[in-house]
Amino acid sequence: MYIVILAGGSGTRFWPLSRKRHPKQLMSVFGGRSMLQRTVERVLPLNPDHILVVTNSLQAEETARQLASLDRGTITVVEEPLARNTAPAIGLAAAVIERHDPTAVMAVLPADHYIIDEEEFRATLVRAGEAASRWSLVTLGIRPTAPETGYGYIEADTSAGREGVLPVRRFVEKPSRERALEFMDSGNFYWNSGMFVWRTDLILDRIRTHLPHLWAGLSALDVPVNLKHLSVLKERVADLYARIEAQSIDYGVMEKAEGVVVIPSSFGWSDVGSWSALPGLLEGDQEGNSVTDSSRLVTIDSRNCLVRGNDRLVALLGVRDLIVVDSGDALLVCPRERAQEVRKVVDELERRGLTDYL
Amino acid sequence: MYIVILAGGSGTRFWPLSRKRHPKQLMSVFGGRSMLQRTVERVLPLNPDHILVVTNSLQAEETARQLASLDRGTITVVEEPLARNTAPAIGLAAAVIERHDPTAVMAVLPADHYIIDEEEFRATLVRAGEAASRWSLVTLGIRPTAPETGYGYIEADTSAGREGVLPVRRFVEKPSRERALEFMDSGNFYWNSGMFVWRTDLILDRIRTHLPHLWAGLSALDVPVNLKHLSVLKERVADLYARIEAQSIDYGVMEKAEGVVVIPSSFGWSDVGSWSALPGLLEGDQEGNSVTDSSRLVTIDSRNCLVRGNDRLVALLGVRDLIVVDSGDALLVCPRERAQEVRKVVDELERRGLTDYL
Repeated sequence: MYIVILAGGSGTRFWPLSRKRHPKQLMSVFGGRSMLQRTVERVLPLNPDHILVVTNSLQAEETARQLASLDRGTITVVEEPLARNTAPAIGLAAAVIERHDPTAVMAVLPADHYIIDEEEFRATLVRAGEAASRWSLVTLGIRPTAPETGYGYIEADTSAGREGVLPVRRFVEKPSRERALEFMDSGNFYWNSGMFVWRTDLILDRIRTHLPHLWAGLSALDVPVNLKHLSVLKERVADLYARIEAQSIDYGVMEKAEGVVVIPSSFGWSDVGSWSALPGLLEGDQEGNSVTDSSRLVTIDSRNCLVRGNDRLVALLGVRDLIVVDSGDALLVCPRERAQEVRKVVDELERRGLTDYL
Repeated sequence: MYIVILAGGSGTRFWPLSRKRHPKQLMSVFGGRSMLQRTVERVLPLNPDHILVVTNSLQAEETARQLASLDRGTITVVEEPLARNTAPAIGLAAAVIERHDPTAVMAVLPADHYIIDEEEFRATLVRAGEAASRWSLVTLGIRPTAPETGYGYIEADTSAGREGVLPVRRFVEKPSRERALEFMDSGNFYWNSGMFVWRTDLILDRIRTHLPHLWAGLSALDVPVNLKHLSVLKERVADLYARIEAQSIDYGVMEKAEGVVVIPSSFGWSDVGSWSALPGLLEGDQEGNSVTDSSRLVTIDSRNCLVRGNDRLVALLGVRDLIVVDSGDALLVCPRERAQEVRKVVDELERRGLTDYL
């Protein structure tokens, strides 16, 4: 199995710890290793044939640095000159893999997701690989635990399928809260995790069908056999990316393709979409406050707060459900329920030309 | 006129910017000069005979450092070995002044008060000095602008007195909110500012009457004539302070003495009792947010917040009436309405032995 890790996200929702050159996937969101490093470590026990990490050129240096300690010669960083969403990134990785082994199964994994049960996750990937070798486009679906309106949903046909591999009826983009509640109650809707497994020749064939411009560009790349020589592609990839449109693999291929299946998964998953996701994933103290270093947190009548990056002592007095993030050069204070709006701060920084903080 | 500045307060309510060795009066609460420096500068145009700054030994070095640039040979720092409230501090200063000029008028001013109209303040001090030379114990009273429950009140006899100098009927300690409202409506109650003006021999005589132990100790000090040689008193002052009890001049003398008058004052005053006092004294932006350096504040839908010490960029998103104070090594976040409880944080730091932050 080949592993493709999508690591090019800009991660503005974790400002001020995430920055343009240091986005969420390169951050130590949970302390210790970065999310990218954890994503790689999570698949290493599967002994993958090769790991391709697709990222953008701004982050390539830091990405390579973080991977150096994990690489036993089976990790390659693939640089994108521009962010063009997931379809070009996946297509580019598939084109590289095809040059080696057109019939290889490849798993596509975002670099910035949190997974609780790693054993179960790997077992699911193995099952997905088996289904993929039977010519399916496999998606990993997460059983909804809340009526999330920020996720895409996958409707499965629970009357068909076998061994936990269900045919997909349709994809549904971010629903209203009312519909999300219906989906959750129905029992046959799953969150779209953005994790996919398929044969390389199959996804390239589907790209040819549904995204013919992208396919033509990928076909013309003339990928070198030796992965160490990928840099010769740089100019041709830049030309391709300048011509093609941004497109998600979900919208561009999966929603239109035949033979899509979903594997309902139960390894415990979060896309860690904003600071407000962390209190649910991290252990807090008795008052529900979560902090990197509790020896430097003083709380007086304060509950359910998230404090990150506390190189300095932080004292909270009489506050509730507050997020306090200190990056050294910048400090963010916002209520947990508004953490997904941190993007607005980044926009304002851009508007005011405060580029040092981006 | 001699000026006595009481500068020994511990200022825990301005943590984390105020510390044991760097309390509120030595802080640049309003940017630029410290509160002590501003207090000294405020009286210099009166050409006082001498300025005595009474502080405790822990702060004496920093106090002397801050005064160096203002001193033209007329400022002396008087060290107290322990905090014993205002009566011993004032008695000690009076004993020193008496050795030079027993009939001198002395004004007692806290080092950590904010005054808006400094011209009016000085004019009031001159009027107070005239009243004091007619053998009155003069207090400066502030017309209440709110039913404050944290201040002492002075009831004046508005039917007597002349030229804005009113006999005092009684002192009232911190009242209930209900009584504070009555006081405000009555028109003859004033806040006790803690600023006093009197003849040195008169206050010492009243100390003799009402605090005989203190008086006896002060009389035995044998103060040297030359103010530069005050350090010879160190051991004797230490002995005295070890023996006497803490006592405020209000409770120990003023509430019991005859001949006390109040001068209703209108120079605009605040005792700057906690972080929550600052928003009323500082100009805020359109959303009412007050900050040291607005070029490094980003606010999204945030109102009436106070941000201090922002060497770093501070982003506020969706918060109201919040105090955010960053001292470099420590950060405080609390609602404005609870700023007077910052003492609790300091207590907790002491309990946990986090002495670096005290």
